[in-house]
Amino acid sequence: MATTPAAPGAAPAPGRFPLVEPGPELDADGRRRWARHALVPEIGLEGQRRLRAARVLVVGAGGLGSPALLYLAAAGVGTLGVVDDDVVEVSNLQRQVVHGTADVGRPKVESARDAVAALDPGVRVVVHPERLTADNAAAVLAGYDLVLDGTDTFESRYLVGDTCAALGVPHVWGSVLRFDGQVSVFWSSPPAALGPAVTLRDVFPEPPPPGTVPSCAEAGVLGVVCGAVGSAMALEAVKLVCGIGEPLLGRVLVLDALSHRWREVPVAPDPGRVTPDPSVIAGGAPGARTAGAVLAGPAAAPPAAAALPAVTARELAALLAERDAGTADVDLVDVRDPAEHALVAIPGARLVPKDRLLAPGGIARHLDPARPLVLHCRSGARSAEVLVAVREAGHRDARHLAGGLLAWVDEVDPSLPRY
Amino acid sequence: MATTPAAPGAAPAPGRFPLVEPGPELDADGRRRWARHALVPEIGLEGQRRLRAARVLVVGAGGLGSPALLYLAAAGVGTLGVVDDDVVEVSNLQRQVVHGTADVGRPKVESARDAVAALDPGVRVVVHPERLTADNAAAVLAGYDLVLDGTDTFESRYLVGDTCAALGVPHVWGSVLRFDGQVSVFWSSPPAALGPAVTLRDVFPEPPPPGTVPSCAEAGVLGVVCGAVGSAMALEAVKLVCGIGEPLLGRVLVLDALSHRWREVPVAPDPGRVTPDPSVIAGGAPGARTAGAVLAGPAAAPPAAAALPAVTARELAALLAERDAGTADVDLVDVRDPAEHALVAIPGARLVPKDRLLAPGGIARHLDPARPLVLHCRSGARSAEVLVAVREAGHRDARHLAGGLLAWVDEVDPSLPRY
Repeated sequence: MATTPAAPGAAPAPGRFPLVEPGPELDADGRRRWARHALVPEIGLEGQRRLRAARVLVVGAGGLGSPALLYLAAAGVGTLGVVDDDVVEVSNLQRQVVHGTADVGRPKVESARDAVAALDPGVRVVVHPERLTADNAAAVLAGYDLVLDGTDTFESRYLVGDTCAALGVPHVWGSVLRFDGQVSVFWSSPPAALGPAVTLRDVFPEPPPPGTVPSCAEAGVLGVVCGAVGSAMALEAVKLVCGIGEPLLGRVLVLDALSHRWREVPVAPDPGRVTPDPSVIAGGAPGARTAGAVLAGPAAAPPAAAALPAVTARELAALLAERDAGTADVDLVDVRDPAEHALVAIPGARLVPKDRLLAPGGIARHLDPARPLVLHCRSGARSAEVLVAVREAGHRDARHLAGGLLAWVDEVDPSLPRY
Repeated sequence: MATTPAAPGAAPAPGRFPLVEPGPELDADGRRRWARHALVPEIGLEGQRRLRAARVLVVGAGGLGSPALLYLAAAGVGTLGVVDDDVVEVSNLQRQVVHGTADVGRPKVESARDAVAALDPGVRVVVHPERLTADNAAAVLAGYDLVLDGTDTFESRYLVGDTCAALGVPHVWGSVLRFDGQVSVFWSSPPAALGPAVTLRDVFPEPPPPGTVPSCAEAGVLGVVCGAVGSAMALEAVKLVCGIGEPLLGRVLVLDALSHRWREVPVAPDPGRVTPDPSVIAGGAPGARTAGAVLAGPAAAPPAAAALPAVTARELAALLAERDAGTADVDLVDVRDPAEHALVAIPGARLVPKDRLLAPGGIARHLDPARPLVLHCRSGARSAEVLVAVREAGHRDARHLAGGLLAWVDEVDPSLPRY
């Protein structure tokens, strides 16, 4: 039922809409379970048989994957693949409703599999407890009719987008941050009736430079925005499988949850786009390394970070103890946002957010060049960026905390909340 | 923290936005769990403390209540009330993702309570395993800061709307049918900054006449539309509790899932509206019976139905057996929609949908006045409506199946799917 993957280098054949052929007739149990779908003329028993025959891959069993998996399972999708290499953390539960408190510490794919089985034990769940990489992406995606991307790093997003584009598999895409949500459908080889091909790179040609876009871990997200966007993704998946309505191909829906307004942004294919070669994405070809380098995640530290002077969390704790005893001095500056500082802070650190330090004249206004300085952020990426500027401004005795606040929590005070 | 309920007959005092005062400081566990909220400046630790102190009532643990309960629990709402007098049926699971297959037959409030506890055992769940009535509505709603209405009968919807209006409690309202969704916020006594009061009856002054609007049980619903609308409801609840953004007061959001477009319909207060008196809604006052009579559900049979000639399911089975044996004749006509007939049908019934029979000349074209006739639908309401017209057209030997197809399944062939 899947579009046959194209041979390496060949353009994928045009896809179909409906995407999936109907499976076997439903028995009485199936007619009971999916009666409310069967009663909708556009779906009917035939649409329900398409859903039962569908094989849908959900990449990421997190904020977006949670509602998508629940509603796809409820809709009767027969085969659900789940890709995730993370374990459930308590900070996930504010939005990842497919997991529960008892699942903390378990692999997310296992927790998600159990939740799907509880809804409908007849769904075949295929777990992929691994991170999607250039080496395995094409193999993981093979055999699925449709892919939903609910990941949260640029590396994964472009890998899913490029692999779907290469294989000709429809790609339902969503993203969230704070009060903002976006959802769209990409497809490199749609049937002519649905309009021109549009892929992720038509809308976002390249990932943003590392560090320029905050992650949900740094900037936060209103949990229920994931419910709105993940449901919208599952809706598009059902429409594609059953061949009903107007898919979001060529349109990005944008949610502003504060005003609760959805607007639609039309997107057109990029005439300069070259369909990626699946052999490249799958690794092994000479281009693979280049592609991997382009797709760095946003939280990755700048290349110079490793060479920058740093203190470990234990060293910083000793420094602060000396400062308290009056035997040494250190100015510990937290460069995170005020909301992060309010959530959890290293005792004795003062807050000067990165933007304020990097503004014109900010370093001179906020830092004393005669005082030993330690900068810190959450993970060490932002503090490294500030440290480069601070040292260029002539501060000699300036270091940053390697691994940031997370290292402090792990090595010095595990009673503080990680985030 | 709740707006104090007004004394009977008095207009409620203006409400507050934020609706709820912050509860105690969060401990380290709470900072971990809700870190992603605390990092959003508009929410922060204070907003999270408001959520934890909030008492939210969800009326109906069904299609809309499911995502609302999951996301309110995930958001950290401290007290969640759940009103429902139904048990879980397998046909619910296509959209009611708070329940699982193992819950079939259990009271929905218990299944919902367990799902909330699995997400966060710290949430206090108050179950109300009863149907909301004019007698108990004010008592059930008392003590909650906010009410979400996820019910599916007009009787419940107007009862919730009128009781919230009388008490001055904000009312988050949603509805779904097939591919359509709607969501809004009603509030009879909002703070001045949010604009004028708008209540359910400003938008829908009266319930539609019985039988004119199909229910989800008759017309079906795409399950994931519940996810979209229920998430939108939970989003509005969080905004009201925390006092952030622009609530949907005075605006109805309308979703067409086939095109995946949301549009916004502005709604204004009805200048002729009179705030309902809570003592009336709570029963006992002379007006109560009148109000109850107005609020009949859409699936209720017309008043004449009881007086119409009917056959029981067992009698019909005997008649059909005689017809098969050639010893009697009966024309069994199914007046439901084609999708309902395709889902489940009484063997030997022929389909002539109600709309076709009631169209000009339809009875003469489709029915033979010389042949004994039995009409049936799902529950007996539509067949009664058609039977009145058929008898007025002069058919003497015309009856309908009391209780419809559901009675047939219960009494004659339980192997057939109920819906």
